[in-house]
Amino acid sequence: MDEMIVSLRNRRVLECRKLRQKKYRARSGKYLAEGLRLTEEAVRSGSAEALFFRESFGLISSAGADSGADSGGDAAAGSGAGRERRLLERAEAAGCQLWRIDDRVFASLAQTQSPQGVVALTRRRWTRLEDPDPAAGDAVWLVLDGIRDPGNLGTMIRTAWAAGAAGVLCLPDTADPYEGKCVRASMGGIFHIPVITDVTWEALRAYCVAGGLTLAMADAAAGALYYDVGWPARTALCIGGEAGGFAGIPREETAIQVRIPLERGAESLNAAVACGILLYEIRRGRGGVQAP
Amino acid sequence: MDEMIVSLRNRRVLECRKLRQKKYRARSGKYLAEGLRLTEEAVRSGSAEALFFRESFGLISSAGADSGADSGGDAAAGSGAGRERRLLERAEAAGCQLWRIDDRVFASLAQTQSPQGVVALTRRRWTRLEDPDPAAGDAVWLVLDGIRDPGNLGTMIRTAWAAGAAGVLCLPDTADPYEGKCVRASMGGIFHIPVITDVTWEALRAYCVAGGLTLAMADAAAGALYYDVGWPARTALCIGGEAGGFAGIPREETAIQVRIPLERGAESLNAAVACGILLYEIRRGRGGVQAP
Repeated sequence: MDEMIVSLRNRRVLECRKLRQKKYRARSGKYLAEGLRLTEEAVRSGSAEALFFRESFGLISSAGADSGADSGGDAAAGSGAGRERRLLERAEAAGCQLWRIDDRVFASLAQTQSPQGVVALTRRRWTRLEDPDPAAGDAVWLVLDGIRDPGNLGTMIRTAWAAGAAGVLCLPDTADPYEGKCVRASMGGIFHIPVITDVTWEALRAYCVAGGLTLAMADAAAGALYYDVGWPARTALCIGGEAGGFAGIPREETAIQVRIPLERGAESLNAAVACGILLYEIRRGRGGVQAP
Repeated sequence: MDEMIVSLRNRRVLECRKLRQKKYRARSGKYLAEGLRLTEEAVRSGSAEALFFRESFGLISSAGADSGADSGGDAAAGSGAGRERRLLERAEAAGCQLWRIDDRVFASLAQTQSPQGVVALTRRRWTRLEDPDPAAGDAVWLVLDGIRDPGNLGTMIRTAWAAGAAGVLCLPDTADPYEGKCVRASMGGIFHIPVITDVTWEALRAYCVAGGLTLAMADAAAGALYYDVGWPARTALCIGGEAGGFAGIPREETAIQVRIPLERGAESLNAAVACGILLYEIRRGRGGVQAP
């Protein structure tokens, strides 16, 4: 069922290791997803091209296979060799290449502190802004401008997925969503909804015009409270950076600005928390948002 | 204005360094807060007893004083020696002890990768469950049961502060909110609202009875959606662990269970994001929640 790789200089392993660098991810349209839960999602979504896994994977129960502070309910999915074998079977049925690799070679690929023994080589399904149609469906888009923390960024992609947003557009000053920590924090969301990078302000504006999307901005200085606004059926919600705010989107070009009220001297909310409050507020007005 | 400490074995420095351990924090009721923004909040809240700062602090402009992925708008507060001097002046006026220390000794205290040159020795203002009156005001309490990730925990305290919650009660299976990473993620919230640790289920139940608080639980398996519930004026909102769920609170003993809808196969939200959505939903029904 699977071939074994034993060399650190194996061509496929070298190719994977390069994907730790942003330029290779951008050039190839590929990225890595690590861990049992994430690779399961990658296979389920049809994004995984190949799985690399360590010598004992699927053969003997490995302790701690389900650890992780925010593993999203892995306990229910079972663990150990049985779960690992099911993953390999599903991956093979989906046409993924399977590569069993020497433990030392695997260690050269893994980026987490307690690797779970499996890494997926994953292909971006949407790479250009034109890929997802802005005009399809009753849609909310999340626009991120200047988000620097990969954990926050991944959490926002996870939230956008769960709230039914059509996709996520990242301006150039935003961290790379296809970097390992962000992919993990997205809990698989990045496989399921379009996440487009390096979207310039000009391209964003044209996209919103083409799709009839109203630009809305979360802004601590806004006069309107987020729950007093009539949210348009088609909205592009813009969230700015944790410290520096908006890097690319001019405030005066947005039709709606809203703030979340803060009590007793609090200066701000975590950007991912603010994003969640707003996405769910917009969603709520329409009983669920449709996928594009 | 300040004395200089040059010995790694100085009694005060040794005492501070011990506070990295949970048992010393619990025993003393003290903890450390690191960085410019946090020590400013600690002084402003009246929680800081002493500041320890490195040789050049307040004397020459230090580069990167305002760095940090989620520093909450520090850019607006200015930086460099002027801001540092203002902090020392306010701290002195508030009766804090000021200790300028040798850079090598400071490095032994700092826990962040890019220390900003100042650490506050901070006293818990509320240490026992009886300290904050459960019956005062029109209140929402946040109850955390099994939250393991210190970043998530701190973000929830920050959110509770901003949403106007009366305080945060942590069951024993929850991470220590007075640990450094959590204190930083709280962005100062931990100085401003009561955060009580090691609250047993029995003590929580008695506290809710005494204060007329209705127990509500966020539960992915609940039938009711969070926005279809009539939230009582006095609610104790319970959030369970990222992966393991509730460790101490029996579901059948809560009067309300709600879920946040998830679309297209998403399994869960980040716990801090879910917490924010729910706290702001409860707050919204009453045009702001009063402090106790």
